[in-house]
Amino acid sequence: MPLPEPIYDVAHLAHVELLTPKPNESLRFFIEIMGMSVTTQQGDSVYLRAYDDYEHHTLKLTAARQPGMGHYAWRARSPQALQRRVAAIEATGLGKGWTDGDLGHGPAYRFTTPDGHNVEIYYETEWYQAGETDKPALKNQASRFPGRGANLRRFDHLNILTVDMKATRKFHTEVLGARLTEVITFDDGTDKGLWFSVNNKTYELAIVEDHTGVPGRFHHMTYAVNSREEVLLAADICLEHGVFIETGPHKHAIQQTFFLYVYEPGGNRFEIANPTARLIVAPDWKTIEWSEADRKKGQAWGLKTIESFHTYGTPPVE
Amino acid sequence: MPLPEPIYDVAHLAHVELLTPKPNESLRFFIEIMGMSVTTQQGDSVYLRAYDDYEHHTLKLTAARQPGMGHYAWRARSPQALQRRVAAIEATGLGKGWTDGDLGHGPAYRFTTPDGHNVEIYYETEWYQAGETDKPALKNQASRFPGRGANLRRFDHLNILTVDMKATRKFHTEVLGARLTEVITFDDGTDKGLWFSVNNKTYELAIVEDHTGVPGRFHHMTYAVNSREEVLLAADICLEHGVFIETGPHKHAIQQTFFLYVYEPGGNRFEIANPTARLIVAPDWKTIEWSEADRKKGQAWGLKTIESFHTYGTPPVE
Amino acid sequence: MPLPEPIYDVAHLAHVELLTPKPNESLRFFIEIMGMSVTTQQGDSVYLRAYDDYEHHTLKLTAARQPGMGHYAWRARSPQALQRRVAAIEATGLGKGWTDGDLGHGPAYRFTTPDGHNVEIYYETEWYQAGETDKPALKNQASRFPGRGANLRRFDHLNILTVDMKATRKFHTEVLGARLTEVITFDDGTDKGLWFSVNNKTYELAIVEDHTGVPGRFHHMTYAVNSREEVLLAADICLEHGVFIETGPHKHAIQQTFFLYVYEPGGNRFEIANPTARLIVAPDWKTIEWSEADRKKGQAWGLKTIESFHTYGTPPVE
Amino acid sequence: MPLPEPIYDVAHLAHVELLTPKPNESLRFFIEIMGMSVTTQQGDSVYLRAYDDYEHHTLKLTAARQPGMGHYAWRARSPQALQRRVAAIEATGLGKGWTDGDLGHGPAYRFTTPDGHNVEIYYETEWYQAGETDKPALKNQASRFPGRGANLRRFDHLNILTVDMKATRKFHTEVLGARLTEVITFDDGTDKGLWFSVNNKTYELAIVEDHTGVPGRFHHMTYAVNSREEVLLAADICLEHGVFIETGPHKHAIQQTFFLYVYEPGGNRFEIANPTARLIVAPDWKTIEWSEADRKKGQAWGLKTIESFHTYGTPPVE
Repeated sequence: MPLPEPIYDVAHLAHVELLTPKPNESLRFFIEIMGMSVTTQQGDSVYLRAYDDYEHHTLKLTAARQPGMGHYAWRARSPQALQRRVAAIEATGLGKGWTDGDLGHGPAYRFTTPDGHNVEIYYETEWYQAGETDKPALKNQASRFPGRGANLRRFDHLNILTVDMKATRKFHTEVLGARLTEVITFDDGTDKGLWFSVNNKTYELAIVEDHTGVPGRFHHMTYAVNSREEVLLAADICLEHGVFIETGPHKHAIQQTFFLYVYEPGGNRFEIANPTARLIVAPDWKTIEWSEADRKKGQAWGLKTIESFHTYGTPPVE
Repeated sequence: MPLPEPIYDVAHLAHVELLTPKPNESLRFFIEIMGMSVTTQQGDSVYLRAYDDYEHHTLKLTAARQPGMGHYAWRARSPQALQRRVAAIEATGLGKGWTDGDLGHGPAYRFTTPDGHNVEIYYETEWYQAGETDKPALKNQASRFPGRGANLRRFDHLNILTVDMKATRKFHTEVLGARLTEVITFDDGTDKGLWFSVNNKTYELAIVEDHTGVPGRFHHMTYAVNSREEVLLAADICLEHGVFIETGPHKHAIQQTFFLYVYEPGGNRFEIANPTARLIVAPDWKTIEWSEADRKKGQAWGLKTIESFHTYGTPPVE
Repeated sequence: MPLPEPIYDVAHLAHVELLTPKPNESLRFFIEIMGMSVTTQQGDSVYLRAYDDYEHHTLKLTAARQPGMGHYAWRARSPQALQRRVAAIEATGLGKGWTDGDLGHGPAYRFTTPDGHNVEIYYETEWYQAGETDKPALKNQASRFPGRGANLRRFDHLNILTVDMKATRKFHTEVLGARLTEVITFDDGTDKGLWFSVNNKTYELAIVEDHTGVPGRFHHMTYAVNSREEVLLAADICLEHGVFIETGPHKHAIQQTFFLYVYEPGGNRFEIANPTARLIVAPDWKTIEWSEADRKKGQAWGLKTIESFHTYGTPPVE
Repeated sequence: MPLPEPIYDVAHLAHVELLTPKPNESLRFFIEIMGMSVTTQQGDSVYLRAYDDYEHHTLKLTAARQPGMGHYAWRARSPQALQRRVAAIEATGLGKGWTDGDLGHGPAYRFTTPDGHNVEIYYETEWYQAGETDKPALKNQASRFPGRGANLRRFDHLNILTVDMKATRKFHTEVLGARLTEVITFDDGTDKGLWFSVNNKTYELAIVEDHTGVPGRFHHMTYAVNSREEVLLAADICLEHGVFIETGPHKHAIQQTFFLYVYEPGGNRFEIANPTARLIVAPDWKTIEWSEADRKKGQAWGLKTIESFHTYGTPPVE
């Protein structure tokens, strides 16, 4: 008898709300240095997108006392798929109910991860319409290539710190229907890192263990540029602007992402990355397992993973 | 009432059987110049793959009197999905029945496009297992980066010439459940080019009108490299080896692919390409329509499309 | 008996004065789209430089009724070298006498090429001093990487149209001491293109035959970016801003330059290029000779040289 | 009164003789992994070159009991320039007399650096003539682009460990006429690193202090590839072949070189690098001075310099 069919109800990770204690500096970072654009400003929040993000926003930047993540959101593949996932989430007791939506998208169902991160899922969305000043030359692109700063192309993925790895793994595979494409499992059988995908990107949500025991924290979010060379250019630009570079550019062994990690002025870790031409098209991808010994080898070309990468998250733990 | 849900039964385009009247020269081209590897040789066919193709092969190279395409194949997302698509195909009358499969994959259902191209769809497949000499340093890669020639990473897409554009469009959207991501429609309402995707690649199957009136011909197949820079390196390598470069490197307006078109020694057009970080993650992507006037603008940066690109296909028409 | 020693009196091509009938549009092009910066504005001229140009300016943009070139300048290697070259020039009768210099450099000796182009040679110069807003993070760079538009790094070379190829060749080799690194010589023995270098760049001054018979015209000037990938990015940026792309990106057979030719708003041809790692370090480089047949092959990867490249120059010929 | 004119008698660094205790493994490394080619094999030495090196060889690989450097060589700009430099060297007492030359070049004058490294200078050389199998498509290139491994283009520079920094600095500036383009000088006034150029490359000879007190050792030699992307590809290739990667890819603050350091199988450090479009064309370049504090900042993007980079050299110190 064949296995049950895989779930294809979630289309992609849609956006992240980032909290910043330095809203002006953070905004300048995302616009001037990263090359993103503002769609709308409302209350304490500014809604931003990269030039080829098709939705109203992929980043909601909200002023707050501390850095961290307000929430993040998935987009479902269809109205029916949304209903199915909401039913599955409700069954877990993690559901928090419907909201009328936010700027840029329709009704969203709110829930938390087992670790307490705020999440939403929705289907109805507002496609970004370029105006006179950012109309692209090629109509298959959401808006004009900015020619400014790092020229981020599109939102790529999110990485969250998590205390309860076991429950979180189960939730994402069984309830959301995400595939675990790669995992770090230590010799004692505990997972230290989980990489989930709901589509052909090799991952959209990464979950790494939070050693502090404080649940629900944020590790980083990532935008993709078109080439590894552009990641190098981003490093040059960050260098020129005094942006703190935590580590990179270098290549991850896990997922092979070519990465650059910086801290945006509000204190949140931010990644500029390029996945090269790597995709997962196999519907029956076999989870890649990295052992404790594997992880000790460091990054792909031997760079030792910087200590802060294992400890720093937002909000910071006192 | 919501629309019916989209079909997600086909995972990806899996392989192409290419016919060559110069099997030795073609084989040398794919191994030495393109950097592919042989998995098996059997009868008149050699089975090849790029270094990160996960299946037994993505290219079956078969000796023949004339260049052209023997068949191509889709992989379904699950056994159930395979059955559903087979039922749908059978209902069209284009079905030709099951085969026991081929080297590298299990039972396949054979059918033709409305234009007569031979196609197969299957689910069961043999994952490529790297051996001592091609074991990759990173376990999330199918085999070792070759460091040879153009270093093709993975099969990307197929382009077929078609006389009956209308029937072909209908078949792929309604029967296979592919999404039409971009289209060229002339002022008289006829389609001249169709780009279909079944996943997050922006296209896997392109269909262009065959002006000769001869149905079922092959235009080109394409492998992806990791960067636009590697497409340029491939051009240098082709130049050094006397490979005929038809056009490029340049950037397509349609789909924005950075392309290089060459003819392999057997006479088939072959493309080395890089998609940059462009993907389609929106489940409700709106088909991009290019008009007759749009197409006259040439490629993205103004290169006029070379005449042979509109006329040459294999087998050649006498 | 050994040959006489080569002349090493000229250090490099220093700057070009470009004439534009659309000074505001041209200025915006060089600043916003090309990423250059203004050092000074004076009278009808604006003095610009790329971020790693060490002198006060490499481009003097001057308002004029017609596009074209006002003059260009060489920098000598030392005061003594300057005197020697001036003496040699004076002996040819092409000298026009000393000027007190211009903004950014000291006394300059004026002369013309045998074809009538205005040229200067000087030694004393003003090194550019970056200020608060453009101070580079690395002190071995003239100013900050702009992160704006095409991010031109440095002035690379100049190409002038010339009627009297024979006299021009003789003048540059014998009087200035330039080395002819590559040449196009047709079957009838006439030179069609000359590439001269005075240092390890493979060329700094290119001279191509002007078929119109009008002497002293300008073909194009070129700035270098750090990679071929950045030339591709420049093409994307030009596309987005409606800049006319004449040809490219592609690779020249001659000198192997990876090129992109555009027309700046004033009508002058302008090139963004990358030389890869190619340099000439041999002191006895043997001139590379390209024949009429060679030239018919087109550019390196087979692109046919666009017709306007052979005919268009500034000022335009009525 | 003007300063004395700069000396332009030395054209470029020409080759290095590398000693290896594992000649077969080292040879395979340079051919298969680095993409170099053998010109000749004679006795215990193999003569190699990168595809665009114009001379007979730039690397002489000699079997020996220990890794290290046999000698290195400069090429003079002319026969007269050679005689002048030989006279200047002889006057220092460091001269060792003439040899008849070696395979690939004519008479060479032997001398040592003040630290005891063996050096030669010569003028007459044998230009490499490509044969049937490595004839380039473009005649301005020394031989065919290999499409193999790292595809090194040309010899770039040499770095030697030195105990007596003061004497070595004086020797290179005053006797050879090299320009000191960058220097690390600590707070106590002692130089820790010296970067010399005799042409428009920003450096060809780097000299770093040897803390062991053992004179005359070798730090590394470097070949250039055409782009930073190709340095990344070289890292991937080294990873796949188990080549020890010491550090990188990353960007040096000093000279801005994009670097990758590996150990070839014989134990010698070897660098694959790209200089981007950076050149020094100013004849009066002002030495860039890096302080003790500057050096503590690490590499350009913040990578801490790996400890072995300061301690490891060949032959190793017991």
